[in-house]
Amino acid sequence: MPASEAASVRRREILTAASRLFRERGLQRVGMREIAHELGCTAGNLYYYFPSKTDLLTYCQEATLDELLAVAEQIAGDDDTATIRLGRLIRAHIVCLNETYPGSLAHLEVETLEPDRRAELLAKRHRYQRLIEEMIAEGIRRGELEVPSPRLAALALLGAVNWTVKWFSVDGELEAGTVGEVFSGMLLDGLRRREA
Amino acid sequence: MPASEAASVRRREILTAASRLFRERGLQRVGMREIAHELGCTAGNLYYYFPSKTDLLTYCQEATLDELLAVAEQIAGDDDTATIRLGRLIRAHIVCLNETYPGSLAHLEVETLEPDRRAELLAKRHRYQRLIEEMIAEGIRRGELEVPSPRLAALALLGAVNWTVKWFSVDGELEAGTVGEVFSGMLLDGLRRREA
Repeated sequence: MPASEAASVRRREILTAASRLFRERGLQRVGMREIAHELGCTAGNLYYYFPSKTDLLTYCQEATLDELLAVAEQIAGDDDTATIRLGRLIRAHIVCLNETYPGSLAHLEVETLEPDRRAELLAKRHRYQRLIEEMIAEGIRRGELEVPSPRLAALALLGAVNWTVKWFSVDGELEAGTVGEVFSGMLLDGLRRREA
Repeated sequence: MPASEAASVRRREILTAASRLFRERGLQRVGMREIAHELGCTAGNLYYYFPSKTDLLTYCQEATLDELLAVAEQIAGDDDTATIRLGRLIRAHIVCLNETYPGSLAHLEVETLEPDRRAELLAKRHRYQRLIEEMIAEGIRRGELEVPSPRLAALALLGAVNWTVKWFSVDGELEAGTVGEVFSGMLLDGLRRREA
């Protein structure tokens, strides 16, 4: 696959179009031809960027996870409180899935990949989840957070942020960053009103 | 499809087995033959309960949503505070998806259904989400809850609880009810420690 900056911009356009179709019709009902049609380009042009639909799905998941991991590792090394770092991670995750790589609906569907590429992706996902669990465990040790299980807390966060790809619309009223901000507040502080 | 109590128990067993395979191999990689094999029954026996894989997926989603809606409508009519009702809804949702209808991984994949059955399911999903939004809006009016948007709060809750089907294991250490209890506490009160 071509690796220039222009190619990466083009790939993002392709993912945006593919994502729209996946959401409307389901991942397995959409072929490369429909994606090319949605983009108004030839199938040949699309194949230049992604030799197959599997390549498109794999690229989408790998690019997303690599970005999530890079951001999480950087945030994990920061000096801020665990609460601030988790908030930043929640925002970054939502922006990554819905703005940076808008085709990330596929992010939910790791089961659709070929077994050999799945193992690697699952290992990365696992590492990402561990980073979040460790951040939460640290917050508990420092007395900032209070949850019965870092693992269950990480899974609740991941569910809420991953699910955004099911409903977030790139053309909608809300920016991904705004959703990230609101989610970060709601998940860390809960829905229940805190007394002043 | 047969409608007796025994048939409904058998259907649940089938969903449990199918769910395990869907999670391991992905929804579209699993056929009726693999499900029959996993159950140790004949394909003919399986077809008696579900004439096709589409019927199985549709049943799973319809049964789940009908149950969720019935519970939500009952909870919405209760006298308790909005916070207590929401907590009860979160628990019931997690138990319904992971214990009552354990095949509910399909619940996430409404896009896989035929367009004519999708419209009805999407309308039900929409009604369910509206019930949650109204419960949250009522909690805000009563001064119990504090969130910038009932819609975004409902979507965060739905993401966290729906995502449980991706990781909850029927044979695992945790009961669905325990997960429901922990999630209800975390989502309503947040991860951040509340001062005593």
